[in-house]
Amino acid sequence: MYQDPLLLTPGPLTTAPETRAAMTRDYGSRDSRFVALSDAVRAGVLALAGGDETWACVPLQGSGTFAVEAAIGTFVPRAGKLLVLVNGAYGRRMKSIAAVMGRDVNTLVFDETVPVDPEVVDQTLRDDPAVTHVALVHCETTTGVLNPVQDIGDVIARHGRRLLLDSMSAFGALPVDVKTLPVDALMASSNKCLEGVPGMGFVVAPIDALRAAEGNAHSLSLDLQQQQVAFARNGQWRFTPPTQVVAALAEALRLHAAEGGVEGRGARYRVNCDHLIAGMKTRGFETLLRPGIQAPIIVTFHQPETDWFDFEGFYAALRTHGFAIYPGKLTQAPTFRVGCIGQVTVDDIDRFLTAVDLVCEELGR
Amino acid sequence: MYQDPLLLTPGPLTTAPETRAAMTRDYGSRDSRFVALSDAVRAGVLALAGGDETWACVPLQGSGTFAVEAAIGTFVPRAGKLLVLVNGAYGRRMKSIAAVMGRDVNTLVFDETVPVDPEVVDQTLRDDPAVTHVALVHCETTTGVLNPVQDIGDVIARHGRRLLLDSMSAFGALPVDVKTLPVDALMASSNKCLEGVPGMGFVVAPIDALRAAEGNAHSLSLDLQQQQVAFARNGQWRFTPPTQVVAALAEALRLHAAEGGVEGRGARYRVNCDHLIAGMKTRGFETLLRPGIQAPIIVTFHQPETDWFDFEGFYAALRTHGFAIYPGKLTQAPTFRVGCIGQVTVDDIDRFLTAVDLVCEELGR
Repeated sequence: MYQDPLLLTPGPLTTAPETRAAMTRDYGSRDSRFVALSDAVRAGVLALAGGDETWACVPLQGSGTFAVEAAIGTFVPRAGKLLVLVNGAYGRRMKSIAAVMGRDVNTLVFDETVPVDPEVVDQTLRDDPAVTHVALVHCETTTGVLNPVQDIGDVIARHGRRLLLDSMSAFGALPVDVKTLPVDALMASSNKCLEGVPGMGFVVAPIDALRAAEGNAHSLSLDLQQQQVAFARNGQWRFTPPTQVVAALAEALRLHAAEGGVEGRGARYRVNCDHLIAGMKTRGFETLLRPGIQAPIIVTFHQPETDWFDFEGFYAALRTHGFAIYPGKLTQAPTFRVGCIGQVTVDDIDRFLTAVDLVCEELGR
Repeated sequence: MYQDPLLLTPGPLTTAPETRAAMTRDYGSRDSRFVALSDAVRAGVLALAGGDETWACVPLQGSGTFAVEAAIGTFVPRAGKLLVLVNGAYGRRMKSIAAVMGRDVNTLVFDETVPVDPEVVDQTLRDDPAVTHVALVHCETTTGVLNPVQDIGDVIARHGRRLLLDSMSAFGALPVDVKTLPVDALMASSNKCLEGVPGMGFVVAPIDALRAAEGNAHSLSLDLQQQQVAFARNGQWRFTPPTQVVAALAEALRLHAAEGGVEGRGARYRVNCDHLIAGMKTRGFETLLRPGIQAPIIVTFHQPETDWFDFEGFYAALRTHGFAIYPGKLTQAPTFRVGCIGQVTVDDIDRFLTAVDLVCEELGR
C-alpha cells in the first residue's frame, strides 16, 4: 500500500486519523447537529485565545489569507490607516491586501532574520498619528522568526492604536491572551497548530469592535461584522460552510485539549524543533536564525553551497523516503524549510534525520 | 449506530462514501500528488463546461458566494456597469456584492415565480448602453426556477455585452456550453450537482478575459486573474487550498463520469423530481412553480394553510424519520423546499414520501 509522506511543512499538515475520520460524514449546514459542531469550534477557539463573553470567534470560509484580508477590511475604517510591521512575506502580503482594497497603508520593514523591534514601532507611531491600526505577524513562517507580540502590543496600546495580529502559524502552540493586547482581531486558521484540515480561518475579536465595524468592509463575503451577525442570530454560517472541515476542526480541538492544550502542544513542537536543529547541525546544516528568536514551528536552513546539493533533488529524494519538506521563501539567500508541527513526534524527527543521511549519501555528498 | 439523515437540501448534500473516503488522507499543498489532483479537477470541470484550450477553470477557496463575488470583482471593470437579472435571493445577493465593492450596478427584477424574460432584457440593454456585464442565475435555488440561459445569452451577445452566469445549483446536472454563450465567467461550486463536499467554488472563463481583467479586482484573495496566474505557472494554488475538499471533488468527478456525465446525472435528478412532485401532489402539497419552468434541482411547496402544520414541527418530525429538508426562502408566501440532488435515488424519494405520510399523521392531519 502507498504510504503518504509525513508532512514537515507549515501546513497543510499531517493530521490525526481521528481528525480525518471526522470528515467521513455528511452534515446539513442548517441542521442542529452541524450548528452544535460550529458552536463547539467557536467556543473552543475563543477559550484558547483567552477571550471571554465580550469577545467572539468568527469563523470564515477559505484559507488563512482570506481571514487576514477579512480582518483588515472589516476593522480598518475606510478613512483609517494601517501600519504593517514587515519581516517576511506574510507581512508584505498584508500590505498588498490593504493596497488592493484601497486602504491607506504604510510599512515598517525589518530584516527577515530579526524580530520586529518594539522601539522602532514606538517611534513610528509617535511620528504618524494618522495610523489607526497596526498589523503584525506572530510567527513569520517565511523564516520561522518569533515576533515579541506582548512588547509590541504594549507599545501600540500606549499610543491608543489597535492591533491586527496574524497568529496563523502560532495559534494553538504558542500562548496568546487577547485580553492583554490591544487587539481588534487575532487571525488564525484550522490547519496549523490546531492540526485541523485546511479550508477555513477564524478571527477572534471584541464584540464591541465588531459592532463598530459595520459598513467598513470592502467585500460581502469577507465582512466579519455581517458574518458575526449571522452566528449571533442562530449559530448558522452566513454562506455555505465547509461542513467536513468544521467537523475535522471540532475533533482536532478535542485532541488538542487531550494533549494538554497550548502548553502540551507547544512542548511537543519545542522538542521536535530542538531535536531537528541539533540533528541537522551535526550533519552540517546551518539554521538561518540565531536560537533565541526561533519559534518552534518551522526552521529555515541554509542550502549547502556545494555541487552535490540542489533543492529539487534533495526534496525528491526525501520524498522517496517518506518526508515532504518545504522550499525556502527568503529573498536574501537560498534556503529550505522543515516544519515541526502536525502529528509529528521526536521519533519522526529521528527517522527524518536518518533519511537526510541516506539522501546526502545518494546525492553524492 | 446513529444514522445520518438523507439531505434533501440544495447542498451540502448527501455524498457518495467514495467521495468522503477520499478525504481521509493528508496532502502537501505543493506536492506533485496534490498538484495532480488539482489538475484533474480543473480539467474535469472545464470539460463539463464545454471549454477548450482557450478557456480556464479557476478554482477558489470558500463557498460558492465567494466565487460569485470573485467573478464580479474580477471581470466587471472598476468603471464598468453590472446589470443583475433578479428573480430570487441569489440575484439579489449579486446586487449586494456589486454594491459593497462599489461597482455601478442596476437590477432588472422579475417575480420569483417566473423565469427571467429575454425580451425585457433586450429592451433594458437597448436603453442602457453603459451596462458592460449582465449577471444571471441559471437555476434560482430560492424557488427552483430554471432561467432560459441560452435565450438570454443570445440577447446579451447581440448587444455586445458579457455574461456572468451563476450556475451554482445547475452545473453538472443541466447542460451548459460556455462556447455558445457570451460568458466572461461561469460560476459554480463543489457541493451541488457535482456531489463533492463544500469548501471551494470555481469559475470557468476565457483566458483572454482573465488576462484583460488584470488590476480590476477589489480584493487580493478573490482576484481570479491572479489566481489563474499561479495555476498557469506551476499548477499550484496561490494560497493554502482545501486539500481534502479538492481530493473529494476529484473523486466526485470520477463518479459523475461513471454515471454518464451531465446527461446521466440530470436524468436521475429529473426522475427524483418528477416522482417527488407527483407523490407530494397526491398528498395534497402544491408546488409553487408551474411544471414547465421547474428545474430538477429543488422543489418549492406551499405550506398547507391548516392548524396542524408548522414548518419547525414538520422539519423536526421528518428529521426523526431520517430526512433533512430545507426552509423556504420566498418573500411572498410561506413555503418549504425539498431537494432532488445528491446521492439520492427514486427509492429514497419513495421512503421520503412514506415518511411524509407518517409525519402528517403524527402532526394530527
